[in-house]
Amino acid sequence: MPSISIRGGQMPPSPIRKLNPFADAAKKRGTKVYHLNIGQPDIETPKAVMDAVRNANIKVLAYSPSAGYESYRKKLSLYYKRNNINVTPSNIIVTTGGSEAISFAIMACMDPGDEIIIPEPFYANYNGFAISAGVKVVPIPSSIDNGFALPEIHEFEKAITSRTKAIMICNPNNPTGYLYSAEELEILKEICLKYDLFLFSDEAYREFCYDGKKHISALTLTGMENHAILLDTISKRYSACGGRIGAFVTKNAKVIKAAMKFAQARLSPPSLAQIMGEAAVDLPADYFSKVHAEYTARRDLLVKRLQAMEGVECPVPGGAFYAIARLPIKDSEKFCKWLLEHFSHEGATVMLAPAAGFYATPGQGRDEVRLAYVLNEDDINKAMDCLEVGLKEYRN
Amino acid sequence: MPSISIRGGQMPPSPIRKLNPFADAAKKRGTKVYHLNIGQPDIETPKAVMDAVRNANIKVLAYSPSAGYESYRKKLSLYYKRNNINVTPSNIIVTTGGSEAISFAIMACMDPGDEIIIPEPFYANYNGFAISAGVKVVPIPSSIDNGFALPEIHEFEKAITSRTKAIMICNPNNPTGYLYSAEELEILKEICLKYDLFLFSDEAYREFCYDGKKHISALTLTGMENHAILLDTISKRYSACGGRIGAFVTKNAKVIKAAMKFAQARLSPPSLAQIMGEAAVDLPADYFSKVHAEYTARRDLLVKRLQAMEGVECPVPGGAFYAIARLPIKDSEKFCKWLLEHFSHEGATVMLAPAAGFYATPGQGRDEVRLAYVLNEDDINKAMDCLEVGLKEYRN
Repeated sequence: MPSISIRGGQMPPSPIRKLNPFADAAKKRGTKVYHLNIGQPDIETPKAVMDAVRNANIKVLAYSPSAGYESYRKKLSLYYKRNNINVTPSNIIVTTGGSEAISFAIMACMDPGDEIIIPEPFYANYNGFAISAGVKVVPIPSSIDNGFALPEIHEFEKAITSRTKAIMICNPNNPTGYLYSAEELEILKEICLKYDLFLFSDEAYREFCYDGKKHISALTLTGMENHAILLDTISKRYSACGGRIGAFVTKNAKVIKAAMKFAQARLSPPSLAQIMGEAAVDLPADYFSKVHAEYTARRDLLVKRLQAMEGVECPVPGGAFYAIARLPIKDSEKFCKWLLEHFSHEGATVMLAPAAGFYATPGQGRDEVRLAYVLNEDDINKAMDCLEVGLKEYRN
Repeated sequence: MPSISIRGGQMPPSPIRKLNPFADAAKKRGTKVYHLNIGQPDIETPKAVMDAVRNANIKVLAYSPSAGYESYRKKLSLYYKRNNINVTPSNIIVTTGGSEAISFAIMACMDPGDEIIIPEPFYANYNGFAISAGVKVVPIPSSIDNGFALPEIHEFEKAITSRTKAIMICNPNNPTGYLYSAEELEILKEICLKYDLFLFSDEAYREFCYDGKKHISALTLTGMENHAILLDTISKRYSACGGRIGAFVTKNAKVIKAAMKFAQARLSPPSLAQIMGEAAVDLPADYFSKVHAEYTARRDLLVKRLQAMEGVECPVPGGAFYAIARLPIKDSEKFCKWLLEHFSHEGATVMLAPAAGFYATPGQGRDEVRLAYVLNEDDINKAMDCLEVGLKEYRN
């Protein structure tokens, strides 16, 4: 039998999904499972957005252009302008989810053996795209002890080698919920310009910033026009994860040209969800204020409940819809598995993502978990009841 | 400015789409362009299939499982059983178009520096996926002079090295329209078993076989259970190219496990078009007979017209909806460009794909073009009028 590839062996299993079989088994036993492990919001996809697909008069569901429909790219550039990001349709390639935008950035800018610096913990699937591309992830530490702020500039400089080609951030951050400040983005700019590095900025959660803080896009940093690449998606913004529509955006014409060749090779992004994305740009402004209020309430509740638990630490996330908590246990993977396998409280349990899978450095984050506050407040309360009771039971 | 990647530079532009700017310019001048360059059928997507999406009661457009909805994978296994391919839902990963299935096969089975043997001419985007993965394409020749039959067994054996990991075929073939015989598939089986190679079989055009010939899937070859990987798509089968739904199918459990990790990294295939794919399996049996009759008539007309042109050769394709023709000119790329830039006949012109881009060997296929008979007979006739008049004018 021919062997699978070495990279196929190296690909890490998803820390978000690897405990799924245990969750499935719990459900089969009749236990209700509250899923705080995955960023799948329960917020309804806006009806106007779904209706755009339902009412589209499609005779032949044809390929779209490889860069996406021009009408959608025009609308997207309007959306970006509203967010102070000045880009034209020709700066945009519509992608199959944010995932493909990440892949295009790595493929168009990096070769096998090149290195990308990423503050850890980071979105675990960055590992998968890096391994696929033969690129080495160089983590630099951010810590729960200072709320996951950007590492100091010397941490970046220590990590830079002749093979370093890019820095990648997720802002606001998945999994930490950290929102980068203007000062931090200036530091990133300084490093990228000094060492001539690309800055890949995953801004999937742009709309989800709390406490009056403003989001700053990497594309608005002056002087970074040829260095900054924005990786985007409609998945979280409009609760349309299954649409699989994202965007790769940069003012660097050479990078767009290279990325377009990868885009042509896979022909086109999904046509139907582009129609949704286009309609979404026309949603009334109060759409985001309602969603924002909902997530703020969920965040406040989740953090309050976590902070009230004995031995639990949880910095208040400034954005996105994730929080990392440190639990008074040694091995969160064992605990998360135990919650699914051996525990229930009033017929229910909670599924969390062990945080170690979001760190590249072995041993880091073993007492931490990531929680996605994607469920309504009632469910979050019940999930927190499970966690609170579960922690006590597990420690005895 | 940081440089783009070497692989970004190496990626070839699509031979199908590279002349698009000239077609756009022709349209702006008011010239009608008949697109025989791209496999985008004008056949309507079945209404029942579109209606499945329109009528789906979706509140939250959520991620599907990474392998695709279980209900869809169950339906797909029924579809395959009808086609004498015995697979279970666990043998199937739903992909984002056939493109992603190709990419998963290369990623899960091959490492950088590994070699894949492909009879040329071949679907040009195989190059893009190979370059992305750092894999070397080793072409072996098939020729218009014998209708693009599978090369002799010694051609394969000559090409095999210690790095050879797979053979890839497209059956029926894009771009040649060639349908592999039972004897040819036995030869492939013999080679794959002797040298322990994977057989990647792109069967996007399974339903389009003419003259009473039967399609034989690589997955039906006994003894090849661990070697054969089927790469599939609903794009052509149901004229649903924009859906971006395909499938990666194999009985090799290790390969499925490795491919699943790449599938998890990109989260999920598009949800909406999976609903279409599921509904499509329930289409009445006469759906294919009608479509089949339509394509047969188009093929017969196209080939008849081509063969009637002075100096033009065109083997009768046994399947798919492509034909390769040899034209009485030296450089088909120049000619195709000229057709768009400097020619019109009764206000129209025709766009063809220069065939050199489908060959990996430099210099091959320069007097050939690929034609997709995806337009109705009336349009094909008008496109052939353009080609016939254009050839005369160009040669004078």
